Amino acid sequence: MLPIDKAVFDAVTDKLGIVDINTATIRQICAQAVALEQVSGEKFVRLEIGNPGLKAEAVGIAAECEAIAAGIPNKYPDIAGYPALKSAASEFLKAFVNIDIPARCIVPTVGSMQGSFTLMLLLGQRNPGRDVILYIDPGFPAQRCQSKVLGLGARSFDIYDYRGKALEAKLEEMLADGRVAAILYSNPNNPAWINLTEEELEIIGRAATRHDVIVLEDHAYMGMDFRSDLSHPGVEPYIPTVARYTDNYILLVSASKIFSYAGQRIAVVAFSPEVFDGCTKALSDFYEMSTLGDCYIFGVLYTASSGTSHSAQYALAAMMKAAVDGQLDFVGNSREYGCRAAKVKKIFSDAGFDIIYSHDSDRPISDGFFFTVGYPGMTGGELQGELMRYGISTIPLRSTGSCQEGLRVCVSMMTDEEHFTHLNERLQMFKNDRK
Amino acid sequence: MLPIDKAVFDAVTDKLGIVDINTATIRQICAQAVALEQVSGEKFVRLEIGNPGLKAEAVGIAAECEAIAAGIPNKYPDIAGYPALKSAASEFLKAFVNIDIPARCIVPTVGSMQGSFTLMLLLGQRNPGRDVILYIDPGFPAQRCQSKVLGLGARSFDIYDYRGKALEAKLEEMLADGRVAAILYSNPNNPAWINLTEEELEIIGRAATRHDVIVLEDHAYMGMDFRSDLSHPGVEPYIPTVARYTDNYILLVSASKIFSYAGQRIAVVAFSPEVFDGCTKALSDFYEMSTLGDCYIFGVLYTASSGTSHSAQYALAAMMKAAVDGQLDFVGNSREYGCRAAKVKKIFSDAGFDIIYSHDSDRPISDGFFFTVGYPGMTGGELQGELMRYGISTIPLRSTGSCQEGLRVCVSMMTDEEHFTHLNERLQMFKNDRK
Repeated sequence: MLPIDKAVFDAVTDKLGIVDINTATIRQICAQAVALEQVSGEKFVRLEIGNPGLKAEAVGIAAECEAIAAGIPNKYPDIAGYPALKSAASEFLKAFVNIDIPARCIVPTVGSMQGSFTLMLLLGQRNPGRDVILYIDPGFPAQRCQSKVLGLGARSFDIYDYRGKALEAKLEEMLADGRVAAILYSNPNNPAWINLTEEELEIIGRAATRHDVIVLEDHAYMGMDFRSDLSHPGVEPYIPTVARYTDNYILLVSASKIFSYAGQRIAVVAFSPEVFDGCTKALSDFYEMSTLGDCYIFGVLYTASSGTSHSAQYALAAMMKAAVDGQLDFVGNSREYGCRAAKVKKIFSDAGFDIIYSHDSDRPISDGFFFTVGYPGMTGGELQGELMRYGISTIPLRSTGSCQEGLRVCVSMMTDEEHFTHLNERLQMFKNDRK
Repeated sequence: MLPIDKAVFDAVTDKLGIVDINTATIRQICAQAVALEQVSGEKFVRLEIGNPGLKAEAVGIAAECEAIAAGIPNKYPDIAGYPALKSAASEFLKAFVNIDIPARCIVPTVGSMQGSFTLMLLLGQRNPGRDVILYIDPGFPAQRCQSKVLGLGARSFDIYDYRGKALEAKLEEMLADGRVAAILYSNPNNPAWINLTEEELEIIGRAATRHDVIVLEDHAYMGMDFRSDLSHPGVEPYIPTVARYTDNYILLVSASKIFSYAGQRIAVVAFSPEVFDGCTKALSDFYEMSTLGDCYIFGVLYTASSGTSHSAQYALAAMMKAAVDGQLDFVGNSREYGCRAAKVKKIFSDAGFDIIYSHDSDRPISDGFFFTVGYPGMTGGELQGELMRYGISTIPLRSTGSCQEGLRVCVSMMTDEEHFTHLNERLQMFKNDRK
């Protein structure tokens, strides 16, 4: 029976050791949803997890099986990466982002999680006294944990009040003391699905050059700004990037969402040639190597895991090549998330919710993997708890570094018509109970 | 033409930036061998690299292809590990090592390299002021790099002079100041192929308990002490382990060598239940979790890579299960390395070389993946350089933390009869040129 009785809800929450719903981890929220499903006998509408909700690309599956059957599991992958993957990624970035990164500057990692973890480690050693990661929030909470686990400093700001020109002064304030080693953000943004404008990317690029800070630009959801058609290789418009405005960049490109290949933990990091071939005295003294790229590959990645699954590298190489050749429309395939988002947004809107991060400059945000919602007169924590009682699980925005009162909604698991029906019924019930 | 002219050899070495042959990395030595092959026109006998020289186990290949074809690449693996792998590993350790580790205390990692890297990180945070890794040398140079990259302290000693009872006082000396967080060694040992005796394992176990230090026992070459038949699941004799003498242990078990599955980067770490379920104030404060196992899985591994290849977990589960069921004789299959070692040892011995680490207590060491050799009147560095001139590449023992003068010989790449013929001819030439 929904809504779940308040006393029952509180008992379940206490039992799971959740003290403050605003700081609960996604894992705790998943556990809470499962426990509440049991006590209520009702299947929850799961809007909290970001699992790919599509099938893995068949091209990748075929290439990976073939490589395994051919016997590559007994061979250590080249620690610098399978050469065909490095080339395919270089061509992929040229075709869809229109930037020139040579194959040698591209290195596979165990998902972009290993990419950001190991890059933070390296960049925290790049210059003495520069060991702080600047997060442009809201962001992916796990990345915030990475700098903590590594013993690095962190600072952040909520971009909500600093869009457009206002970003420049804010960045200047955050970078002024020279402690920041790297700036991290994802574009499109997790959780708010904002996309930085060209003006904003230029501001970030300029600031990075001026302060010699490296930008880690996470393209986890590459191409999923569906307001433009980014699906044609070698044809404008191209995917926006800070790489057009600074040489101080490293891109993270994961197969997890763009090819629905999260299980195999495969991604690449793509260095600007200037960053890859450059070095600092601190790095060359510590690693006894003469380029940052070598320090990363043979110093950090070698010790962190000695490479990533050999066969998964074949899969990613094949998928990227097929995309470049126009055989695999990864943007078109992921457009399904945009369709789901449009439907889910309408259901929330009909029930009186607002989109919080609603615009990029004067354009409404794209439909995509995530969006954010608030409800008049309720804090994010209150709203999170109330929707849980109505059989809907989300994550509170506060856990993503946002200062706004609301929730992150992820549409990836909205796979059946029934999910939309349930969501609509429950949100209408929620709305009516508030009258 | 062999031997390569000294001036030519020096020029090639200089060009590669190798300043001191004693501290050259394996990668540099590989590059040197390749360059010398080009100038000499002679294929080298490659005794430096530890690639698996056998085919990947078919059981793993079949299971992995099946899992991929069934579509698991789109699903994030459970960060605590694929349940069937956790259970299979628990049964595997019971069957071959005769220890009881519940499935929940076993976690997959991206090879044992990720295992030791992430465990060092965690154990360095376990107690304030305890941030030093103690290496029982000789050892695997890459593991020594791990603590360096992580900013941890390191100390070590060469076990050559401290076998048997002498180990006790030496360990006491190394642990006395309370700075050591963990002790790391591999058994069988890389590079010396010594196996610790039961007396030595008991000494290590007692010291670990007394000083509250965690033993990281690396079983990269599990079962490859061919002096006993360790191949029968559930039958004595069992594989030796420190786990019989202390609760303060974590085992590293990689598929790379025992199943010739290095390419897929898959291993498990197996915690003693006491370590897994225990915690310290420092860890629980930092990670806000109540057991060391949770801190490791949801704190460290989640941020380091969010798990390891989903399909590789299926492969390892299937291989371990087949081994437990008596369908896959992984010990028997790896016995090929022992046969190669016996032949290579005889060739070195006939040319006047000595085995350096030659005994475990009163027993000659096993034949296996590696062994160590010296030549009367020559330092390790001299010997390394001279053998390179004769078309034989090895690695100098100094790079492994050994204080002895000699080389590590790895037999894994001795796959053709021609390799043995060349080795014999060249070592005889080396010997004759010394008369």
